[in-house]
Amino acid sequence: MSNGRHLILDLYDCDPEILDNYEELQRLLEASLVMAKANILRIIGEKFKPQGVTLLALLAESHASIHTWPEIGYAAIDLYTCGDTTQTHRAAEFLKVKLKSTKAKEKELVRSTTPTN
Amino acid sequence: MSNGRHLILDLYDCDPEILDNYEELQRLLEASLVMAKANILRIIGEKFKPQGVTLLALLAESHASIHTWPEIGYAAIDLYTCGDTTQTHRAAEFLKVKLKSTKAKEKELVRSTTPTN
Repeated sequence: MSNGRHLILDLYDCDPEILDNYEELQRLLEASLVMAKANILRIIGEKFKPQGVTLLALLAESHASIHTWPEIGYAAIDLYTCGDTTQTHRAAEFLKVKLKSTKAKEKELVRSTTPTN
Repeated sequence: MSNGRHLILDLYDCDPEILDNYEELQRLLEASLVMAKANILRIIGEKFKPQGVTLLALLAESHASIHTWPEIGYAAIDLYTCGDTTQTHRAAEFLKVKLKSTKAKEKELVRSTTPTN
C-alpha cells in the first residue's frame, strides 16, 4: 500500500480580494483538484467576519484545505492524497498563480502507512 | 498575529474495529476537539467501502481531520489551529489512547503567517 503525500503550502503576498471571495476560492480549489486528478466527494466552507475564508474538500484520496487571511495576504493550503494517481504539485502551482502569490513556502511530507517505511 | 500550529499525527497498530466505526470516530474527534478547546463549526465525513473512514472538522481556528485504514491499523490525523487558545497536544494524546495505538509519529509544523518569521 502506497504512502500518503501531504503537500503543505504557505502563500504570502496574495491578492486580498481573491482571498476574501468565497465563490472564487471554491472555483479555484475545484479546478486545482480536477487538474490534480483528485476525486472530490464534497466541499464545505465558511466565510468569516470581518474577513477570511476556510474551504475543506473531502476527497476519495484524503483531503484538501484552504484557509485565508486577506488582511495580511496569507493563505495556508494543504493537499493530502493517498494513491499514485494524483498530481498535487500541479494543483499547488495553479493556486500560487491564481492567488497571485509572490512568495511561497512549500513542504512535502510523506505520511508512511507503516511505522517502518 | 500569531502563527498557526499544525500537528501531524500518524498512528499505527490501532484497533481496526474502532478505525472502521464512523460514529465512534466522530464521537472521539468531537471529544478531542472539545478537550483541545477548539470551536467546531461543522464536521463532515465518509465511510468508504470495503473499509475506512474520513472525517473533516471545520474549526473556527482552522481544521482537523482523521483518515483511517482499518486493514493495516493506520490512522492519519491532522490538528491545525491558529490562535493561542487551543491545546492540540491534549487532543492528540486522547486520540492515541482511544484508538489504542501502540506506535505513533508526531510532528508539529509552525505555519508562519508572514514569510520572515
